Amino acid sequence: MIFLKNDYSLGAHPKVMDALVETNMELTDGYGEDPYCAKAGELIRDLFGCPDADVHFLTGGTQTNQTALAAFLLRPHWSVISADTGHICVHETGAIEATGHKINHVATPDGKLTPRMIEDVLIFHEDEHYVLPKAIYISNSTETGLIYTKDELIALRECCDKNGLLLYLDGARMAMALTCGGSDLTYEDFPELCDAFYIGGTKCGALFGEALVIVNDELKPDMRFLIKQRGGLLAKGRLLGVQFQALMGDGLYLELGAHANRMAEILAKGIAEKGYEFVIPPQTNLIFPLLPKTLEEELRKKVMYETWPVVTETHQAIRLVTSWGTTEEEVRALLELI
Amino acid sequence: MIFLKNDYSLGAHPKVMDALVETNMELTDGYGEDPYCAKAGELIRDLFGCPDADVHFLTGGTQTNQTALAAFLLRPHWSVISADTGHICVHETGAIEATGHKINHVATPDGKLTPRMIEDVLIFHEDEHYVLPKAIYISNSTETGLIYTKDELIALRECCDKNGLLLYLDGARMAMALTCGGSDLTYEDFPELCDAFYIGGTKCGALFGEALVIVNDELKPDMRFLIKQRGGLLAKGRLLGVQFQALMGDGLYLELGAHANRMAEILAKGIAEKGYEFVIPPQTNLIFPLLPKTLEEELRKKVMYETWPVVTETHQAIRLVTSWGTTEEEVRALLELI
Amino acid sequence: MIFLKNDYSLGAHPKVMDALVETNMELTDGYGEDPYCAKAGELIRDLFGCPDADVHFLTGGTQTNQTALAAFLLRPHWSVISADTGHICVHETGAIEATGHKINHVATPDGKLTPRMIEDVLIFHEDEHYVLPKAIYISNSTETGLIYTKDELIALRECCDKNGLLLYLDGARMAMALTCGGSDLTYEDFPELCDAFYIGGTKCGALFGEALVIVNDELKPDMRFLIKQRGGLLAKGRLLGVQFQALMGDGLYLELGAHANRMAEILAKGIAEKGYEFVIPPQTNLIFPLLPKTLEEELRKKVMYETWPVVTETHQAIRLVTSWGTTEEEVRALLELI
Amino acid sequence: MIFLKNDYSLGAHPKVMDALVETNMELTDGYGEDPYCAKAGELIRDLFGCPDADVHFLTGGTQTNQTALAAFLLRPHWSVISADTGHICVHETGAIEATGHKINHVATPDGKLTPRMIEDVLIFHEDEHYVLPKAIYISNSTETGLIYTKDELIALRECCDKNGLLLYLDGARMAMALTCGGSDLTYEDFPELCDAFYIGGTKCGALFGEALVIVNDELKPDMRFLIKQRGGLLAKGRLLGVQFQALMGDGLYLELGAHANRMAEILAKGIAEKGYEFVIPPQTNLIFPLLPKTLEEELRKKVMYETWPVVTETHQAIRLVTSWGTTEEEVRALLELI
Repeated sequence: MIFLKNDYSLGAHPKVMDALVETNMELTDGYGEDPYCAKAGELIRDLFGCPDADVHFLTGGTQTNQTALAAFLLRPHWSVISADTGHICVHETGAIEATGHKINHVATPDGKLTPRMIEDVLIFHEDEHYVLPKAIYISNSTETGLIYTKDELIALRECCDKNGLLLYLDGARMAMALTCGGSDLTYEDFPELCDAFYIGGTKCGALFGEALVIVNDELKPDMRFLIKQRGGLLAKGRLLGVQFQALMGDGLYLELGAHANRMAEILAKGIAEKGYEFVIPPQTNLIFPLLPKTLEEELRKKVMYETWPVVTETHQAIRLVTSWGTTEEEVRALLELI
Repeated sequence: MIFLKNDYSLGAHPKVMDALVETNMELTDGYGEDPYCAKAGELIRDLFGCPDADVHFLTGGTQTNQTALAAFLLRPHWSVISADTGHICVHETGAIEATGHKINHVATPDGKLTPRMIEDVLIFHEDEHYVLPKAIYISNSTETGLIYTKDELIALRECCDKNGLLLYLDGARMAMALTCGGSDLTYEDFPELCDAFYIGGTKCGALFGEALVIVNDELKPDMRFLIKQRGGLLAKGRLLGVQFQALMGDGLYLELGAHANRMAEILAKGIAEKGYEFVIPPQTNLIFPLLPKTLEEELRKKVMYETWPVVTETHQAIRLVTSWGTTEEEVRALLELI
Repeated sequence: MIFLKNDYSLGAHPKVMDALVETNMELTDGYGEDPYCAKAGELIRDLFGCPDADVHFLTGGTQTNQTALAAFLLRPHWSVISADTGHICVHETGAIEATGHKINHVATPDGKLTPRMIEDVLIFHEDEHYVLPKAIYISNSTETGLIYTKDELIALRECCDKNGLLLYLDGARMAMALTCGGSDLTYEDFPELCDAFYIGGTKCGALFGEALVIVNDELKPDMRFLIKQRGGLLAKGRLLGVQFQALMGDGLYLELGAHANRMAEILAKGIAEKGYEFVIPPQTNLIFPLLPKTLEEELRKKVMYETWPVVTETHQAIRLVTSWGTTEEEVRALLELI
Repeated sequence: MIFLKNDYSLGAHPKVMDALVETNMELTDGYGEDPYCAKAGELIRDLFGCPDADVHFLTGGTQTNQTALAAFLLRPHWSVISADTGHICVHETGAIEATGHKINHVATPDGKLTPRMIEDVLIFHEDEHYVLPKAIYISNSTETGLIYTKDELIALRECCDKNGLLLYLDGARMAMALTCGGSDLTYEDFPELCDAFYIGGTKCGALFGEALVIVNDELKPDMRFLIKQRGGLLAKGRLLGVQFQALMGDGLYLELGAHANRMAEILAKGIAEKGYEFVIPPQTNLIFPLLPKTLEEELRKKVMYETWPVVTETHQAIRLVTSWGTTEEEVRALLELI
């Protein structure tokens, strides 16, 4: 079977795994207060050009989104605005609401938020009978495989400044967002434009782990209390520092993202050449071809992937996901099948 | 000024107020364990034909919706489906989410839910990465002034039974829902078709108070704990029993609803005769005429009401609300102004 | 039966009830945005000498404690310190914890907190593996019928200032605390020494209602959102303004407290003269005589009261509660029985 | 420095690490739905003799306690009784309260709960003004290094059955509890006597991870939703299955616990022989000698450990913790220093 189902099923990149093995028998302080977490935090502050940011390491994406948003939405009546395809809206089992906060869902054509959409929500919330929207959640790249350009992020930042909103960015696939064709973002843009964001490890080469970067000073205090309270403070916290040092240290992170994107590009080009269309334009490592149902039925016998909820009488859309571990042979083999 | 802004600004109907004055200097047990609450509960069970139902009295609508839904959504991952115009979705400051539960918002043409809309939500929620919809919230009459017919409620009940869902009905304006033209519902239909519902007092003649009726045995245990924990157990609980006895005792409740509807009907007929249209067909005590902007600007100098978010280049929709205290003189006076 | 079971079973003082009846058929804005609430707030600011305080009206004590503390404990890891006999610790069904916050219980000899007790808690909470105590909850008078002197309150204030803590005072029985023998507090002391407090109506002459006074500027923003979200914003909000105007307007409030205390004093003196002791020294309207079991068994046939959990082989403590409605005849009749 | 500060600072036992390395480049389904988790679950069910139990893998102790108790305390007014030294009471930053539930703290002489203590709590909780205690939390071995005997656990079980309570056991150090001198428990006793419990990995040889075992059928449904909602469903879930297979598979788990206990025993014997006493009798891998302050000040220059809050004028108690990685050389070296 060719595996194109997701980008989190492989273990860690060998360099990351080696680092874990090498440090396995060391004795360090627990709960993230060890030299590895300290160095990984330093490395991230350097790379992203944000010397004053706080960096915290957590074990997974839902945990990071939940902990960060529950911490940043300081008051119980504050809500967060998200595209209704956003990960927090659909795929986290109500984790945000479980902390007591409402998500203001916004319908979007492609999974990306715009200032106009945000302001349409704000106008509607006029007094204390409504929640008070105070944060924006975006993911980059999005759950639809798209990226925000620098101009789009700047526009969102300006909208946030104008309206007193916080901008939080879910970077589960930041490595892909930074290295795909059409991307004009660099590491430095994230702390420049966001109040907080996370650098995704799980889908980009780590065994597990995400690095939460808090730029806005008001959001920094006592974050370790909040991570602990939500069960996110890993006892052997250095495991996360060790991994992020290995990932971020010598350009590995972007290399892995670039590889995943390159594999998706070959796939997308090949599929297009065979005359098939895409329900969302291919941009990063998630692509969504619309295939004839007869073909799709054959394909699923030899390829692992998920379907996408766009169906016509004759066609079915599917989601193909490449990762740092996808090989060109696998991609070519899939193209043979089409 | 003619007051058509809402149906909760007057105090209590004089008969209700008299009952409160008469019993004022009595000494009874507190927290709803007094003879008045007992008798009012008995009266409600009789009128609604549900001898085994539990009846609890709370002070307001948001409190009742929040307490009931948080109690009925037994597990943290259970969610409630509501029209996105539903009171719990927009006008309760995230009160449901504040208890940790997600609301699944549904866009509707007119504020009413249908089985098809519900099943569209259910299909989408396929596994543990999503919340689990377990209850349906409807209001009758709705925030858009419409009612559910008996057939519509039966269809919702069947949909709930088929899918293992609870049906909860917000009866803030139950008196109006039961007495408007086109209504084929009686008291008995509510316990027959709902797992739980509340009989609205605040908007139908009480000084304050709502009666929560729990029909489904599984939802009954320990409800007093939950009301107390959410701050809803009134120390002088008998105030609620006294009021509901006065309201329900001799047909007063339906009389007051019928009066409000009759005033709205006269208004609607008069407005239609003058050639204006309605953005939602008039049915109960909330009507939504679309008026020329020039007329609307004059009107607001002499009438208190709220605008409704439907605007054209030349027209503005408004919301007119009649109540048990609205007089025919006021209504005629308004029609004069148009 | 002589009723000495609690101080919240009677309805409203006649002057309060009259005010409600007189204003019953008025039409005002809802949710506390009416002239009566405005005037009652002004009156309270004047009487308490806190021209910049915010005043909000809620319907009951548990609701007020829950809403206020959940609002003031700005962050999820902040906790509140309370005597373990405090109302929020035992008699509110976990209402504080239901908002996600821990209460740090403190064992006390008599229900009163001291700076030493508070600092013993603080020392123990050393890092992010513990909650962070940020507020102090006291009631005055206490659930044990005692009062804080001005010096004691000043000491608590200084302890709070030194340690960055908020001081919140539950004034369910403020009328009694201010008018008992030994009290050296005046209205002005409350805003001077507390960050926020509430003036109890339910137990001191109102039909229902409490006035939450927020002195600390940092605690003021958006309080109406929080009250609404917890179901505490009464639709016919003026009912609360009307009552507090009547209560506070001409000294009635203190008069009612003084009456309750006077009745308790007569009782206590009479009981002492008959040679019985008290498990807590009588000070306000809650007194706790220790009676021979044989006498207690006779008494309960003719008097309604609650027992108190102090028992010896031969004696049983009971709690006698007087109110603004207790008459000297009742008190004398009880003394006859002993 | 000799490290006796805690038992979670080393990485994984080499056999566990090898298993992770070997399976690193496999592609399996995510979120615990892989063959490794399935097999590890099967292995646990076999070893513990509970063929119908559900087994879930989570990443840490606080996360497991929080997720499990919030799931098992089905209703918002249900509370859990714990010794006030219990991990959930003090060292989890209010994680249980953050889910809305109260912990009933019980003072104990040594960190262990007895039926009598539990019943003293129950008697006090008489109606809906109090929370309703519904679960018991114990840890075995305890935070004080002690164990429950089989008879003690049976007595707790009987107390739970009699009073309708759930028994939940935190087995963060289960390996030590089962292998210390005086222990008469076997794997089979846990499902026999508890409604649910967890097998600690983090402190007993795993890189990270705990195995939650649910025995009581009523607690099983939808647990995966709850784990996901609290951020505990690890994307690469097989990491946990792989580790627990390695740990439980060939007796490694008990071997590691026995080693830690043996090291502590040598330490305790040596310290006793030098004439020092213990503030809690040594039983497992946590021991608490009371040392002269002068000696303690010397010791801390060469040994890493934590102090324990028992101090006299001349002596200071300390906590020494051994682990599966502690060597006999380290232990002998420490004894040399005393």
